[in-house]
Amino acid sequence: MFTVDLNCDMGESFGSYIIGRDEEILNYITSANIACGFHAGDPSTMRKTVKMALEKNIGIGAHPGLQDLAGFGRRMMDISPQEAYDMAVYQIGALSGFVLSEGGKLQHVKPHGALYNMAAVNQLLAEAIAEAVYKIDPELILYGLAGSELVKAGERIGMKTVNEVFSDRTYQSDGTLTSRSELNALIKDHELAVNQVIRMVKEGKVTCLQGTDLKIKAESICIHGDGENAVDFAKYITTALLDAGITIKKPKE
Amino acid sequence: MFTVDLNCDMGESFGSYIIGRDEEILNYITSANIACGFHAGDPSTMRKTVKMALEKNIGIGAHPGLQDLAGFGRRMMDISPQEAYDMAVYQIGALSGFVLSEGGKLQHVKPHGALYNMAAVNQLLAEAIAEAVYKIDPELILYGLAGSELVKAGERIGMKTVNEVFSDRTYQSDGTLTSRSELNALIKDHELAVNQVIRMVKEGKVTCLQGTDLKIKAESICIHGDGENAVDFAKYITTALLDAGITIKKPKE
Amino acid sequence: MFTVDLNCDMGESFGSYIIGRDEEILNYITSANIACGFHAGDPSTMRKTVKMALEKNIGIGAHPGLQDLAGFGRRMMDISPQEAYDMAVYQIGALSGFVLSEGGKLQHVKPHGALYNMAAVNQLLAEAIAEAVYKIDPELILYGLAGSELVKAGERIGMKTVNEVFSDRTYQSDGTLTSRSELNALIKDHELAVNQVIRMVKEGKVTCLQGTDLKIKAESICIHGDGENAVDFAKYITTALLDAGITIKKPKE
Amino acid sequence: MFTVDLNCDMGESFGSYIIGRDEEILNYITSANIACGFHAGDPSTMRKTVKMALEKNIGIGAHPGLQDLAGFGRRMMDISPQEAYDMAVYQIGALSGFVLSEGGKLQHVKPHGALYNMAAVNQLLAEAIAEAVYKIDPELILYGLAGSELVKAGERIGMKTVNEVFSDRTYQSDGTLTSRSELNALIKDHELAVNQVIRMVKEGKVTCLQGTDLKIKAESICIHGDGENAVDFAKYITTALLDAGITIKKPKE
Repeated sequence: MFTVDLNCDMGESFGSYIIGRDEEILNYITSANIACGFHAGDPSTMRKTVKMALEKNIGIGAHPGLQDLAGFGRRMMDISPQEAYDMAVYQIGALSGFVLSEGGKLQHVKPHGALYNMAAVNQLLAEAIAEAVYKIDPELILYGLAGSELVKAGERIGMKTVNEVFSDRTYQSDGTLTSRSELNALIKDHELAVNQVIRMVKEGKVTCLQGTDLKIKAESICIHGDGENAVDFAKYITTALLDAGITIKKPKE
Repeated sequence: MFTVDLNCDMGESFGSYIIGRDEEILNYITSANIACGFHAGDPSTMRKTVKMALEKNIGIGAHPGLQDLAGFGRRMMDISPQEAYDMAVYQIGALSGFVLSEGGKLQHVKPHGALYNMAAVNQLLAEAIAEAVYKIDPELILYGLAGSELVKAGERIGMKTVNEVFSDRTYQSDGTLTSRSELNALIKDHELAVNQVIRMVKEGKVTCLQGTDLKIKAESICIHGDGENAVDFAKYITTALLDAGITIKKPKE
Repeated sequence: MFTVDLNCDMGESFGSYIIGRDEEILNYITSANIACGFHAGDPSTMRKTVKMALEKNIGIGAHPGLQDLAGFGRRMMDISPQEAYDMAVYQIGALSGFVLSEGGKLQHVKPHGALYNMAAVNQLLAEAIAEAVYKIDPELILYGLAGSELVKAGERIGMKTVNEVFSDRTYQSDGTLTSRSELNALIKDHELAVNQVIRMVKEGKVTCLQGTDLKIKAESICIHGDGENAVDFAKYITTALLDAGITIKKPKE
Repeated sequence: MFTVDLNCDMGESFGSYIIGRDEEILNYITSANIACGFHAGDPSTMRKTVKMALEKNIGIGAHPGLQDLAGFGRRMMDISPQEAYDMAVYQIGALSGFVLSEGGKLQHVKPHGALYNMAAVNQLLAEAIAEAVYKIDPELILYGLAGSELVKAGERIGMKTVNEVFSDRTYQSDGTLTSRSELNALIKDHELAVNQVIRMVKEGKVTCLQGTDLKIKAESICIHGDGENAVDFAKYITTALLDAGITIKKPKE
């Protein structure tokens, strides 16, 4: 019996600026990572996105990022562990305000972009973020790159963690994602992308760019909500996972 | 038996920019209104201020404002009730993150500056803010200008409310504060300022600038935390209230 | 011999957020109002937009707005004339940086959104903005709503001014635009819209919503660069103006 | 005949937040680096600071920084050369707006904080910033850390450059400043600090923390405008330089 969670970043619109086909994508995923106003998102977008996700019984996650709207939170910044802790608490709290006022319950936290990548390899940042999540609510699930420092930091303090994998990204031999600035970072062929995740879920293995097999734990698959093919791919991967005998459901259920 | 709450805005520093003598003022007040990052404050300042307030057993309040750091939230903005609701939920949530992670409990919410003044006279904005507070936690106390639309909106939905008065501001015949842009807006003489609040607490009356007496309910007194004389005035008003037989304590205790 | 300038707001993208079909619209207009980073736009977008406009020999204008990215500069704010002056100088200067470094020359300044509307009716704000433009360069052309306080303020200090009209907006009997929050604010029928501007250009008259004719001076027509029909309407109005014997060219040439 | 320029960062206040004793410090320096609104400063502060500096005939410089008000522009960010170019043009332009409208002339550009430090060692960022300055006005003087990549980039395109030294910072054997996060980064003793700069100016040498002498070109000395002793130190270093026979004047005069 194989199961996997399907998650997507959303709520990334800001004021008059619209990004993402959130309403449609919500029909395919089981968990939503909602931007919290630092790298994307604004209070009104957060409220609407939380409401939509609750109506469809999707697991709601806070998706805190660096305070860099101009760079969409993707530019690495030299922040201290204390600053990472503080920005995580702030953003998780802000999203929790909407979850509470809409009558729901927060399921998880997944850092965004550069914060996610830094927390994957920097132990001190990883511990700071894990502690922030834990101190707000020890029942919250911490999402991180499969096998990353962030997942390890969560495990050390006894948190529920989710190892996340990417269908459309290639992996390096150390288990990190190939940087978006490199060629071959993205897997554009849908069939190849889906075969990669099916193997990760069923065999716990992925072939890295250097050609060797890595062990990888795939508890949740991240798909994208923007781009022309986002909805088509969401349908495609859903069908393919079901066909492969994999049940799609929220983590830790 | 007369009692009154003494509150002060704090946590208004931002990054390298320091405002207010919060640590000293916390020795005199019973409730703290902590800025939430929109008009002032940042995540690190919020954490430190919440921690200090909890250590001194001060009632903690969220102090949401307009998203106008350059204007310190004092410039009126033409926002919709929905926008007021959303920005209140966001900021109360963010502060709650720190209150939760520091092991405390949020006591109250008091809007800041232009948001406070607009909510005092605009029924729709007042109702939106009251609803935001209520939906996050119906036990939260809503602070508003004594007799204002905000207090009335809170009462209508059955919330605990606190009528706030100002020691150092003069009143207009309609019960609003004289605008800071007017002469005679401020009462600079400490004795006059304190006599005004003692009368408000004991007799429920204040003499407005136009010369007539108004009925006023004084459940909490706002004092200021910045300025050279802030700490001196905090000491002075504390002694004067005690000498007048007024007990200073948190509201609704 | 009738002539008119055709202008459009552009450069409104921000980071990863894309708004407007600037490249296509630039084929139809004679003057471009480029956002300066306060209500929309960012440094990279400004550089690219200035470059594109110069390549097509379009008159370049700075389009300063309120510092309210979340509200796209459309929410009225209670700013002082000094603040209006300062934010205008800052933003005009910033755009001038790109115009200079790309080897061009700034043609005009047109305030955006709420700043435009406030400057249309508030004499002190109008004078502050006109002075800001004049002190940076007395040769700059000031765009304002036809007959507005802003145009009058520019005329009083001897500036070149342009009276701007809107093809797709209805007018009130006092010459102001019907607020977007009202029904009937927009003229959605292309033929009606174009007939309105042709009459404004050729007869100097417009029929207001209340049914009477107003005198109006139409030196530039504002068209929109976002929305599905933006490019179609740009083509349509261009053809219709030419067919009506009206030459489209930059102002004051 | 020895000469040196004395410069100070200023105009770093933001809205209600006040930093620096600019008015007093302006009595001692010959060049002012004025913050441009990204890491510090706001339009009103920029106008006032430019005006004060012009009244005292101080050379005016733009002081562009990273868009990180919360971190005062001191946190390294992973920006591209193109982004560095764009943010430099924007900020230099914005400050130029005030210099023009106050009837002055911009003298120089000096990047701030993390942008300064990154441009000292990263050739591509250095070239991007030098190009931004040059394209706005080839007569502008580019300030950079003595011997840095930024100064070299300016020299390669034929710009006037100024090698800057620090009185109160210690040097590493590669000519970079000891990071503020290290012990021994600061020289707190006034006499030691001043002796270090006098030797740099007269002998072109500085003893680095590792004990060896480095060659260093000292064309301008940076002093600080905030902190309790800022004004006292400004007086002290001025007297000491004059006593040592060093003339204090603007660069390239």
